[in-house]
Amino acid sequence: MDLYQEKLHQAGELLAAYDLDLWLIFVRETAEHTDPSLKLLGQFSFTWPTAIMVTCHGQALALTGLGDDEAVRRTGLFTEVRTYTQSIGPELVRILSVYDPQRIGINISRSDVSADGLTYGMYLNLCDYLADTPYRNRLISAETFVAALRSRKTPQEVARLRAAADLGLRIFTAVGDFLRPGVSEREVATFVHAQTNASGATTAWDPAHCPGLNAGPASPWGHVGPSDEIVRPGEIFHMDFGVKLNDYCSDHQRVWYCLRPNEDEPPAEVLHAFNAVKAAIRNAAAAIRPGVVGWEIDAIARQTITAAGYPEYPHALGHQVGRAVHDGGVGFYPRWERYGDKPYGTIDAGMVLTLELGVRTRYGYISLEEEVLVTADGYEWIGQPQEELWLIR
Amino acid sequence: MDLYQEKLHQAGELLAAYDLDLWLIFVRETAEHTDPSLKLLGQFSFTWPTAIMVTCHGQALALTGLGDDEAVRRTGLFTEVRTYTQSIGPELVRILSVYDPQRIGINISRSDVSADGLTYGMYLNLCDYLADTPYRNRLISAETFVAALRSRKTPQEVARLRAAADLGLRIFTAVGDFLRPGVSEREVATFVHAQTNASGATTAWDPAHCPGLNAGPASPWGHVGPSDEIVRPGEIFHMDFGVKLNDYCSDHQRVWYCLRPNEDEPPAEVLHAFNAVKAAIRNAAAAIRPGVVGWEIDAIARQTITAAGYPEYPHALGHQVGRAVHDGGVGFYPRWERYGDKPYGTIDAGMVLTLELGVRTRYGYISLEEEVLVTADGYEWIGQPQEELWLIR
Repeated sequence: MDLYQEKLHQAGELLAAYDLDLWLIFVRETAEHTDPSLKLLGQFSFTWPTAIMVTCHGQALALTGLGDDEAVRRTGLFTEVRTYTQSIGPELVRILSVYDPQRIGINISRSDVSADGLTYGMYLNLCDYLADTPYRNRLISAETFVAALRSRKTPQEVARLRAAADLGLRIFTAVGDFLRPGVSEREVATFVHAQTNASGATTAWDPAHCPGLNAGPASPWGHVGPSDEIVRPGEIFHMDFGVKLNDYCSDHQRVWYCLRPNEDEPPAEVLHAFNAVKAAIRNAAAAIRPGVVGWEIDAIARQTITAAGYPEYPHALGHQVGRAVHDGGVGFYPRWERYGDKPYGTIDAGMVLTLELGVRTRYGYISLEEEVLVTADGYEWIGQPQEELWLIR
Repeated sequence: MDLYQEKLHQAGELLAAYDLDLWLIFVRETAEHTDPSLKLLGQFSFTWPTAIMVTCHGQALALTGLGDDEAVRRTGLFTEVRTYTQSIGPELVRILSVYDPQRIGINISRSDVSADGLTYGMYLNLCDYLADTPYRNRLISAETFVAALRSRKTPQEVARLRAAADLGLRIFTAVGDFLRPGVSEREVATFVHAQTNASGATTAWDPAHCPGLNAGPASPWGHVGPSDEIVRPGEIFHMDFGVKLNDYCSDHQRVWYCLRPNEDEPPAEVLHAFNAVKAAIRNAAAAIRPGVVGWEIDAIARQTITAAGYPEYPHALGHQVGRAVHDGGVGFYPRWERYGDKPYGTIDAGMVLTLELGVRTRYGYISLEEEVLVTADGYEWIGQPQEELWLIR
């Protein structure tokens, strides 16, 4: 069973579990604007309005414009591939009539970008096509199903995520060997891109700010490209980086301290900050198990870091990782409006998530990010976490 | 003025022309799901909910999550860049209150994928943020404005489109030298990909079916990868191909006939088909001028090809070309439901469009595709059109 077959099989099972009879993905011109869910099922590219449907019995149906059909048929995943020429509406209604689903899941979500692939215009079109049928009033949000399908990594997905993390961390190690006083953020970015490309991978996010780099306290914080800052003795060097390998991502942060000529170890203030960040991540991780609610894990880290005398981090503790580096669905989110209902979802076995936070010091930005796989009774690290502050001599 | 400044300036002018006070692009996690309009203004990558606004006075405003802001500021395009941490809503309302737009354009379109970037979930969120303000009822579709902004190519855009077309057609010429009896579709695809990569370009659409190839009549028609069919004497070889160079696309189709050992020229039936296809494109092109309605141009080609004894082509005569190979907006579309209201739009100066159609014969698929720039009083070819059937000896 290949990865797409594995995922399609999972979709059938989860539809039944989430009480949906049929999942409908409704797209057009996917090269210009696709639905993020589509890539879970295959590498598709549709020109004309297209309906991809999966039933709770695991059947996959495709209705495409004539000309888009052969590539779908060749995937071998579909029970039925139908075409139309002038309008998708009548044939769509006909197919729905055959399967007569009582509950049809469509991709609408206020909180979860990955489950919100239906545009407003396409929603209006769909409602019109179904206007005089019983199916119009059977459309409901598929968001919990989509989040589960995306979140619960299959064995092949976990293997790919581990391979990505291994590569990403090997590149961090190579960066450690490359760093020395005077090296600039730009030089590190160039080095990292060369290492990534030579490994047959791409960066996990926009290469303009992957890796994200902070040499010392003057480097701007956030999702921004490398600055002209350089590695300096007595300062921190921080890197946020991941790869996408074989379609799956990694995402880690690591920190180094560049020793001054007369130093044997980092200043106590630096070690205190590193240990506080590490402790916040470890305390939060220790509470991870299936059934826990995302915001509770964030709260543990948030409380640990503030108890150590640092301000709250202005973001979430962690997000899922998968085909996308921010893989949608629930996560370790604080209960802030901007995260919608994502903080309130339960954590399930098979999810892969990050734990990430940092503090700004006068030596630079000290921030760590680890990945965990949620297991039946707790968690496992994906990749070896950073135990000690790394040193640049 | 760089290309993005040029486009932003044009946006301000067109907002006034289309009676919009402010254009609002509302996105989140753009690496996972972006709005197709965003790329007209720059190379952005936003993690958190973000509002990009342009006023009819040409001011560009950005409201981003803290951490996404610095990259926006560095573009130098924005009058104002604001941030938020917990919720985008209050600050969004505050900014709108300052500018107090009477008509706010948002990206909703039933027909035009490029103008339909707002997801249904994000639409619901936006309505909630504005619920107790006068702005909730000032939201209207920006689709005609977005289509104009995307369609009316600036001088720098036309220069890039010409460069892409020149490269694409040079690769067609190289393919002509490469073709000989026995060469397979797969070998041609490999050759074309190597030529494209060596030129610093990418394919204009999914490389799995760019180029689209048809060696002889047995090769499957449509958006599908290369088959095992080979160039055979007495058969047609057809290629549909474009490049993306410097972010802008080309899109052409060319046909060859492989002479049999005893032939000096193609069979009369082949020449008749080629000339009918060419005449349909030329007749349609001759009617192009600003103000004509898209479906009328399609109808001319459709009538020419059916009058020559061939069936109608099961697609539109032509689409726009730009940053996307199917660049949205109006085009030479037939009045079929699947094209929504796109067939009914008027053609404007500055648009770049394709003219494409083909006929299936027992020798293979004979199809051409040309590109035109609409000028003040007619059209100009982008790239030299195919005048004669090319021969493989």
